[in-house]
Amino acid sequence: MSCRVGFVGLGVMGGPMAGHLLAKGFDLTVWNRTASKTRPLAEAGARVAESLEALGAACDAVVLCVNRTEDVRECLERLAPALARGSLAIDHSTISPVAAREFQARLRAEGIGFVDAPVTGGSMGAQKGQLTVFCGGEEDDVRRALPIVGAYARRAERVGGPGSGQMMKMANQIAVAGSLLGLCEALAFARKAGLDLGQTVELVGSGAAGSWAFQNYGPKILAEDWSPGFSIDNQLKDFAYCEEAAKAVGAAIPGTELVERLLADLRDQGLGGQTTAALYRRLLQLGSDS
Amino acid sequence: MSCRVGFVGLGVMGGPMAGHLLAKGFDLTVWNRTASKTRPLAEAGARVAESLEALGAACDAVVLCVNRTEDVRECLERLAPALARGSLAIDHSTISPVAAREFQARLRAEGIGFVDAPVTGGSMGAQKGQLTVFCGGEEDDVRRALPIVGAYARRAERVGGPGSGQMMKMANQIAVAGSLLGLCEALAFARKAGLDLGQTVELVGSGAAGSWAFQNYGPKILAEDWSPGFSIDNQLKDFAYCEEAAKAVGAAIPGTELVERLLADLRDQGLGGQTTAALYRRLLQLGSDS
Repeated sequence: MSCRVGFVGLGVMGGPMAGHLLAKGFDLTVWNRTASKTRPLAEAGARVAESLEALGAACDAVVLCVNRTEDVRECLERLAPALARGSLAIDHSTISPVAAREFQARLRAEGIGFVDAPVTGGSMGAQKGQLTVFCGGEEDDVRRALPIVGAYARRAERVGGPGSGQMMKMANQIAVAGSLLGLCEALAFARKAGLDLGQTVELVGSGAAGSWAFQNYGPKILAEDWSPGFSIDNQLKDFAYCEEAAKAVGAAIPGTELVERLLADLRDQGLGGQTTAALYRRLLQLGSDS
Repeated sequence: MSCRVGFVGLGVMGGPMAGHLLAKGFDLTVWNRTASKTRPLAEAGARVAESLEALGAACDAVVLCVNRTEDVRECLERLAPALARGSLAIDHSTISPVAAREFQARLRAEGIGFVDAPVTGGSMGAQKGQLTVFCGGEEDDVRRALPIVGAYARRAERVGGPGSGQMMKMANQIAVAGSLLGLCEALAFARKAGLDLGQTVELVGSGAAGSWAFQNYGPKILAEDWSPGFSIDNQLKDFAYCEEAAKAVGAAIPGTELVERLLADLRDQGLGGQTTAALYRRLLQLGSDS
């Protein structure tokens, strides 16, 4: 098919991703809840749809990059009647794996393909077109999605059937939780023990305790820079889906639950907009004066 | 001084470390509780002391590489009367930071220097002479220790006053705990979710959840190879010192405590000799059938 692509959700992630599609020559139509965000793309040559329904009617494939499960549900309910049989929906939002399976089944019943395709790599990865994309879905649907996703991915691959992309993203967030906990707990301990924090990040981070978190969040903590990056609010959103998924598959995730509680404490202190590395601050609070 | 070095504790770590001293031309005397372990070093040219006391009397610097705090205490009690004023003791064992400070103060009162110098890098690092050594002690004592330690270290540096080397090692073990938890929890979740474990290790480990643990323990878990590496028993030994140190400085280490509980469960199942990566198995056990 001559692929007319629609892109819904032009935020910090979606904006640059849509830009890469345009730059790669895709026939692009965009829509965003806050209409002003469509302007840079319109100026660069994208069509702007007047409504979600209009976008659905004008495209062979629709890419979503919104926020929560409920946002995806609402978009798909409005898009589905407008989308032609044989069209495809690709969802880059991180949402509940259980809901992703449900969405796939519903759309499939109407002859519409669905790929759950959450990403990692952050806003920097989106800007550089260097995201990693975990694709879950029917083989044929994923095969059709990959040329589109490839416009902004360093790496994109099928990880299993419907919902598997979200499951892989949950595994990723669970691993991130442990890694972040190790970094923040070690640095809070080092601070209390009177060690030099810079030396701790450097020495500990270069050996068997080393991690992406050490390399990237270590310097942020040293600089007491609590700006996101990835915010506590967003991490807590993902952790809620982790919990739901873990319950659905019968997995125990006590480390993730611990990090979730500690970050929720920070959110309750009004710090939900800070970087997840502020977990360090919560651990300092929990220590006693010595 | 013409440095006559004594080495006590010729185990998996100490044996190769003493071998590097010999290869670098140090005048080496060794002693080991199990005398047969001195044989390879004697054949390579080391003197073998008849007793700890005889070793102390014959050396300007004594290096310890034993196991627990109590082992170090006993060695130092026997060595101290034999060591000359102005001599130096270097302890590579991972022990309680609180006890390390006490040992330094006692020896200092007798004119003997003491450097707490726990290592990271494992048996492979010891064999290759590529260990990282965290040195705590008076500046002058550490300055005298570095040429000796340099025989088997890729990196050795002073991290602060007496006990600081052990404190840095505790920070390292705390960070390792989180990193290990992230890996094992993510893989146990992935297994329950029906994801391909090899693909999970590869995809998740190459992004923001990446870590030394992912690179090194991920493949071990895939292969269901539970041989140590670093055993659960040894990790639990270190965690007990982490707890003591955290209490002493007023630090909260809930993640480390969680990993400690889970590994203790495995030890209670008779699996204390397995690799710490067997934490994955405990998390699978804690999951439910779904």
